[in-house]
Amino acid sequence: MNDEVYPMAKNLYFFDDGDGTDKQLLGGKGAGLCTMAQLELPVPPGFVITTQVCRRYYESGGKLPGGLMDEVEAAMRKLEELTGKRFGDPNNPLLVSIRSGAMLSMPGMMDTILNLGLNDESVEGLAKRTKNERFAYDAYRRFIQMFGKIVLGIDAKKFDDIFEEHKEKGGAKLDTDLKAVDMKKIVEQFKRVLREETGEEFPSDPIQQLERAIQAVFASWNTKRAQEYREFYKIPHDLGTAVNVVTMIFGNMGADSGSGVAFTRDPATGENELYGEFLFNAQGEDVVAGIRTPLKIAELRVKYPELYKQLLDISKILERHYREMQDVEFTVEHGKLYMLQTRAGKRTAQAAVKIAVEMVGEGLVSKEEAVLRVEPMQVEQLLHKQIDPNAKVNVIAKGLNASPGAAVGKAVFDPERAKALGNAGDVAILVRPETNPDDVGGIIASLGVLTARGGMTSHAAVVTRGLGKPAVVGCEALEIDLEKRMFEANGTIVKEGDIITINGSAGDVILGEAPLIKPKVSKEFEIILAWADEFKRLQNWANADYPRDVKRAKELGAQGIGLCRTEHMFFEEERLPLVHRMILSETDEERKGALEKLLKIQKGDFKDILREMDSMPVVIRLLDAPLHEFLPEYKELLERVVELRTRKRLKNEEKRELEEKKILLERVEAMREDNPMMGLRGCRLGIIHPDINEMQVRAIFDAACELKREGRDPRPEIMIPLVGHVNELKVVREQLEQVAREIMTKHGIEVSYKFGTMIEVPRAALTADEIAEYAEFFSFGTNDLTQMTYAFSRDDAEGKFLFQYIKRGILKVNPFQTLDPKGVGKLIQIGVELGRGRRPELEIGICGEHGGDPESIKFCHELGLNYVSCSPFRIPVARIAAAHAALRAGEAERRRYL
Amino acid sequence: MNDEVYPMAKNLYFFDDGDGTDKQLLGGKGAGLCTMAQLELPVPPGFVITTQVCRRYYESGGKLPGGLMDEVEAAMRKLEELTGKRFGDPNNPLLVSIRSGAMLSMPGMMDTILNLGLNDESVEGLAKRTKNERFAYDAYRRFIQMFGKIVLGIDAKKFDDIFEEHKEKGGAKLDTDLKAVDMKKIVEQFKRVLREETGEEFPSDPIQQLERAIQAVFASWNTKRAQEYREFYKIPHDLGTAVNVVTMIFGNMGADSGSGVAFTRDPATGENELYGEFLFNAQGEDVVAGIRTPLKIAELRVKYPELYKQLLDISKILERHYREMQDVEFTVEHGKLYMLQTRAGKRTAQAAVKIAVEMVGEGLVSKEEAVLRVEPMQVEQLLHKQIDPNAKVNVIAKGLNASPGAAVGKAVFDPERAKALGNAGDVAILVRPETNPDDVGGIIASLGVLTARGGMTSHAAVVTRGLGKPAVVGCEALEIDLEKRMFEANGTIVKEGDIITINGSAGDVILGEAPLIKPKVSKEFEIILAWADEFKRLQNWANADYPRDVKRAKELGAQGIGLCRTEHMFFEEERLPLVHRMILSETDEERKGALEKLLKIQKGDFKDILREMDSMPVVIRLLDAPLHEFLPEYKELLERVVELRTRKRLKNEEKRELEEKKILLERVEAMREDNPMMGLRGCRLGIIHPDINEMQVRAIFDAACELKREGRDPRPEIMIPLVGHVNELKVVREQLEQVAREIMTKHGIEVSYKFGTMIEVPRAALTADEIAEYAEFFSFGTNDLTQMTYAFSRDDAEGKFLFQYIKRGILKVNPFQTLDPKGVGKLIQIGVELGRGRRPELEIGICGEHGGDPESIKFCHELGLNYVSCSPFRIPVARIAAAHAALRAGEAERRRYL
Repeated sequence: MNDEVYPMAKNLYFFDDGDGTDKQLLGGKGAGLCTMAQLELPVPPGFVITTQVCRRYYESGGKLPGGLMDEVEAAMRKLEELTGKRFGDPNNPLLVSIRSGAMLSMPGMMDTILNLGLNDESVEGLAKRTKNERFAYDAYRRFIQMFGKIVLGIDAKKFDDIFEEHKEKGGAKLDTDLKAVDMKKIVEQFKRVLREETGEEFPSDPIQQLERAIQAVFASWNTKRAQEYREFYKIPHDLGTAVNVVTMIFGNMGADSGSGVAFTRDPATGENELYGEFLFNAQGEDVVAGIRTPLKIAELRVKYPELYKQLLDISKILERHYREMQDVEFTVEHGKLYMLQTRAGKRTAQAAVKIAVEMVGEGLVSKEEAVLRVEPMQVEQLLHKQIDPNAKVNVIAKGLNASPGAAVGKAVFDPERAKALGNAGDVAILVRPETNPDDVGGIIASLGVLTARGGMTSHAAVVTRGLGKPAVVGCEALEIDLEKRMFEANGTIVKEGDIITINGSAGDVILGEAPLIKPKVSKEFEIILAWADEFKRLQNWANADYPRDVKRAKELGAQGIGLCRTEHMFFEEERLPLVHRMILSETDEERKGALEKLLKIQKGDFKDILREMDSMPVVIRLLDAPLHEFLPEYKELLERVVELRTRKRLKNEEKRELEEKKILLERVEAMREDNPMMGLRGCRLGIIHPDINEMQVRAIFDAACELKREGRDPRPEIMIPLVGHVNELKVVREQLEQVAREIMTKHGIEVSYKFGTMIEVPRAALTADEIAEYAEFFSFGTNDLTQMTYAFSRDDAEGKFLFQYIKRGILKVNPFQTLDPKGVGKLIQIGVELGRGRRPELEIGICGEHGGDPESIKFCHELGLNYVSCSPFRIPVARIAAAHAALRAGEAERRRYL
Repeated sequence: MNDEVYPMAKNLYFFDDGDGTDKQLLGGKGAGLCTMAQLELPVPPGFVITTQVCRRYYESGGKLPGGLMDEVEAAMRKLEELTGKRFGDPNNPLLVSIRSGAMLSMPGMMDTILNLGLNDESVEGLAKRTKNERFAYDAYRRFIQMFGKIVLGIDAKKFDDIFEEHKEKGGAKLDTDLKAVDMKKIVEQFKRVLREETGEEFPSDPIQQLERAIQAVFASWNTKRAQEYREFYKIPHDLGTAVNVVTMIFGNMGADSGSGVAFTRDPATGENELYGEFLFNAQGEDVVAGIRTPLKIAELRVKYPELYKQLLDISKILERHYREMQDVEFTVEHGKLYMLQTRAGKRTAQAAVKIAVEMVGEGLVSKEEAVLRVEPMQVEQLLHKQIDPNAKVNVIAKGLNASPGAAVGKAVFDPERAKALGNAGDVAILVRPETNPDDVGGIIASLGVLTARGGMTSHAAVVTRGLGKPAVVGCEALEIDLEKRMFEANGTIVKEGDIITINGSAGDVILGEAPLIKPKVSKEFEIILAWADEFKRLQNWANADYPRDVKRAKELGAQGIGLCRTEHMFFEEERLPLVHRMILSETDEERKGALEKLLKIQKGDFKDILREMDSMPVVIRLLDAPLHEFLPEYKELLERVVELRTRKRLKNEEKRELEEKKILLERVEAMREDNPMMGLRGCRLGIIHPDINEMQVRAIFDAACELKREGRDPRPEIMIPLVGHVNELKVVREQLEQVAREIMTKHGIEVSYKFGTMIEVPRAALTADEIAEYAEFFSFGTNDLTQMTYAFSRDDAEGKFLFQYIKRGILKVNPFQTLDPKGVGKLIQIGVELGRGRRPELEIGICGEHGGDPESIKFCHELGLNYVSCSPFRIPVARIAAAHAALRAGEAERRRYL
């Protein structure tokens, strides 16, 4: 915050004078009041002391700038003129409220003092003018209480105790049962508290009251909780708060008075009608407190049509001015309406979309603005089932929010049970210590997954995100007993068959059935997405492995498939045994047999996918995962072998099992790696075992040729993964290009296809010029690239230190969620420049989770990529984000040329 | 090879005409002959057909350029004039030899044909002129035999059988026992073989003989074995060979004739005296064949002083001309000496050093040239253990000398045994039919490797050279029985556990323990190293973890310690239990107690090291290894737990063991990581467990302060490893800087110290400007940086695919041996530029094995690093390499300004 921005700013501005667009100087509340005053809406007279004064206050170690109070006194005199009342007047006293108001809203963080200006004399004047002694002394005791607490730092309990004592003594149930005489006594006792606690008298001089209240509000900017709040929401500490000095308006002056809050449109649905509440004979805080039931604003229309009309008119004026839905506070004193606050209203995603679209219709905003007003991350809310935000739920544990959405089902502890339940039409939540490829069938059969271990890229997390099923993973509070089929979480026991709910958007595990609300894609949402597509430059592709995912992706607007992970197809139930045979075969013949069968299955998959995406690109990644991932788990195998080996007497079938498992164990052991992430996988597999790649390419081209013959236009792009050196790509591509030609010759058909590579190894980015010689496309695999660039194994890092890093501020964000622009991003930039330098028409995109993250999408837009690819469910988020990136870049461009 | 370099070159040059410095055009042999002819040394008349002709021959698909034979015929006519003989003359025939000769020597790879020009008529002329019919017909049959084999491709055995048959029939023991009449018959039979095998007559036209011989020599450039040889030695395939047509000189003309080979200095020791052998009445190949015992050249001095003097004079002339030790071939015909070849002589490292130093003394070369003549990699020979040359050893078999040095150990037949032996502190020589990737662990655990199969690029050869371990491979006499764990070699049986010695420098397999001598550093070697130090700009530091290694490093010329890996100290026997306690402690107190004890031990180590390196920098790396590396092995633990769990009845002590091990297993399991290389290690450990780092820094500064008080000048540099983000460094450094200040205040002593970091994570190099804010030095950890940049886990890659990559040419070299300039090197360059940009005085070096690799050192010199650090025993190699880099850079600089 640089105060040289405001060299000429005054210390305070009356509401009819301040620049309502300058929230930085005047704070949000002050700017709103200025705007409303200047729109000639009814605003109580008052002024704003600027945030700059607050910064000076801190710069000088907690002192108000010299001369400030002279200006404040002059302002008070002007206020007296405007209101016809006098500060501290024993007959007609001017009372004010002192309200904080920073540039960015920090609800409940800073302080407000009401009824300032009361003392032993002026309270009498207030009583006389209002003809209500009880009201006057109630206001007085409230003021002393607030002053004591906020300005002098006295424990609120001291005042509450006295108040409660009086109620008890008088047999009063409600505060309103207390009489004027009680209030007078309370005032005296409150003043005594001040004397005892601080050794000084309650200041009766209103100017002194004001000075100290202003200081107290400035001081409240820097309480510990305010600082923590700002840190969490990344609000700069040096913004400072403004102070608003506002003539008191009393909504509690009787039946012709009251207070209310309203949204200019329904913040839940976006309906274009006033929405809010109004309470008669009440001050603002009473509306929120909920002791009495307020009227719905809609009810005012019939019951108090004039007030309703006045509010409606004001709301239209404000919306026309701000071109945005507003959230207002107002008070009616003796029938006269005063506006106390206006600001942009918070709303649900659904409302945001509806309002944005309708405001275009109303001519309030442009289509560009409408799109910009829908936050990409908010859009996610629209796509998953959610727990009804109004429901009370019993959260028994928290884990990582690995895959968004919510699901209710029976806790089930093994994948076979889950399948049985699924087949029986019942619904399961699969609960496992962690999942592995053998569990995929069970995951597919379940509504959601809950695991005790694993991070955001654990098997469970990746599979469920791919499937669009909710998951909570790494929930360490879970003590799972697979034998007994139960878990304990923080003292709660859940047995198999018990109903639980998981909230994958928040990471919550909930006991019992939480009420869910279904997402719906509204007409307006379709419109916003269509507009977004008009503005974006990046294409949105999807990561999808199965025909059903591809279909969904297309429905959600995918313009291509950026990543089809063929090994995921290998994990499906009937295929895994074939994959085992292929890997473990003793003879070439056996291996070939297994490969032949896999070929048929893969061809079917590819055909379905390519047909679905007719004429759009489909990037198919050749087998990437280390082969041992397809084999039985090492630990289980070892345990079983040792167990059988140790037991004295074995049945014949156990003897056979031991022999078989011993051999299998040997094979699995030989294939184990110290760091499989950096081991025999990706193109290295293709170089060492060329027949698997060959089978896959045969399947792709067989499928494509058959489709072409049917009159379709398949566009396969074959992606060779984990290339670090151009020769790896060269060797594999040359082999496979030959296979492709062979198949096309066999069919007598030419298919349009590309060969390319995933850039996920730092060296590939650094030597992208060489690699571009042999690649027609690059797809940055930002998950692995982030792993290698940081030397973070995501599975290990997220459990062992990454979240600590984020908590301690060593990293600002999780680089696996939002692309790291300085490190990983620099590599991508180098890769793009070198790659396009060698091959200008190179098609470049990213796959990996960053392809659905708005910040990262912005970065990709700026680098000039062709597309971003993400999981089908995030496509709408990514479409909006891509449009935002393009629109914001355009703005920046325009600004540059102004 | 671009022939536009020679647009004006002729196709052939007479020896007194060709440019002797142009080996590229004339080949090594031709250039040598030209040089000698022009130095007026006695050379037989002849001419060279250039390598350019060979290239044209290949370009036109194996045809001699049009018109070439006309030029050759003209040249032959000139040769006839010079010799007074005539080609094909029945009275006085001119005979020539046709000798191949490429730019770079490829011994034994290409062909030579002697006695060309003989036919049924001219053989009679030769008989008459020499008055020796047997000699003439012997020469004739040899020519037909060579022509048949080399030009016509007839199996040599057909000729050998006929020859042997005649010997048997005639009762001849030696070839010389055969008479002229036998030779005549043999000639007839050889001609018949030609007719039968090719369907054509032996060509009697000498010009036709010559044309076909020239073609055959060109063709021999591209035999499979020649191609493989070139690939191994990285000789370009398009150099081509020249063909030398040389008048025949006969050393087998009787007692006044003979042939010899000589080095101008002793190639084994470097002594400045003629060294070689001479055989009377013999042709060149007889000297090498070893049937008769030749005279040592030194003996000529007394027995034939004139010949000796003539040779000595010639040798001095040649040395003065070439300023280099020469290896010459010569023949004496009827008392007249002819020089047939001269070339730079191969020599041992010891000789290379001595000769280089002495030639400086003789004014032949400058100190710079002397240093440049000692190849860094050759220096390694001086540093390997060797078999005492005076020892009598029992060589039981011979194989290929695949990796130099000698080793003594127990023969072991499987890699697991080798590991077990290694772990038990015993020494193994791994003996296998051949090795494959599964054996790498066993190779690492052994002192050396012996295989029955495989060549110079077999798996065993490549791996051992990489590891710097001796190996003898392809030892075909070995009959290995893996079941019985034994081998037989030429009748000797060696069982598992028997002691053998292998000499990887010579390819010998020796029964029993041969006495090994440690390398010693000669006076001349000291001189060369001192000169190298004068020229080099890079400093040479050492990687050394223990005081004893530091001492050795200093003796070998280390100017600092670039990497002291503190965790290696943790592995020492009495310390490991303390480390266990520290990691597994249940209470803070226990942990602190263990840390206190470790502190005392580490302080002692650091004190010894800093004292040894007084006033020189010592870079101490804080704990880097994942903690689980210090815990018991997972698999063993799991097996034992399952075993105990499975057994029905347990003794009390076993029950206790089970309980303890179960807990330990749980801890070990919790600490396991999927990819430990990218997990909780390096500075991440220091952030999560700050007390270990703190203990280490306390130990370092306690040690340094105490030394300072003793009047020493310790220079510790604290290295924080595995930094990827500046904040990691900042957090750790700030904590430790405070500890350091605290200790120094406690001692009342100021130590000079630095804090810095290892750049081993790609992101650190990419953000080196930020990191340099908090680092006073960078040390590029090129091992890990290579792993991350390539995404190669070295442990997995070398076993599973890396050697395959090298064998198939996907990678030219192992990037863990020689720094990859395009990928890893680019990151280093970025790191250096960004780092120095922010902090110009930044001290930058590399540690990791590349610090001892000449190619990599050159790269570091070019990048302007301050030092390279390598293991102590490679320091001399690195000093020479650093000097070469500086001198070559200077040359390049000079060339640029010429």
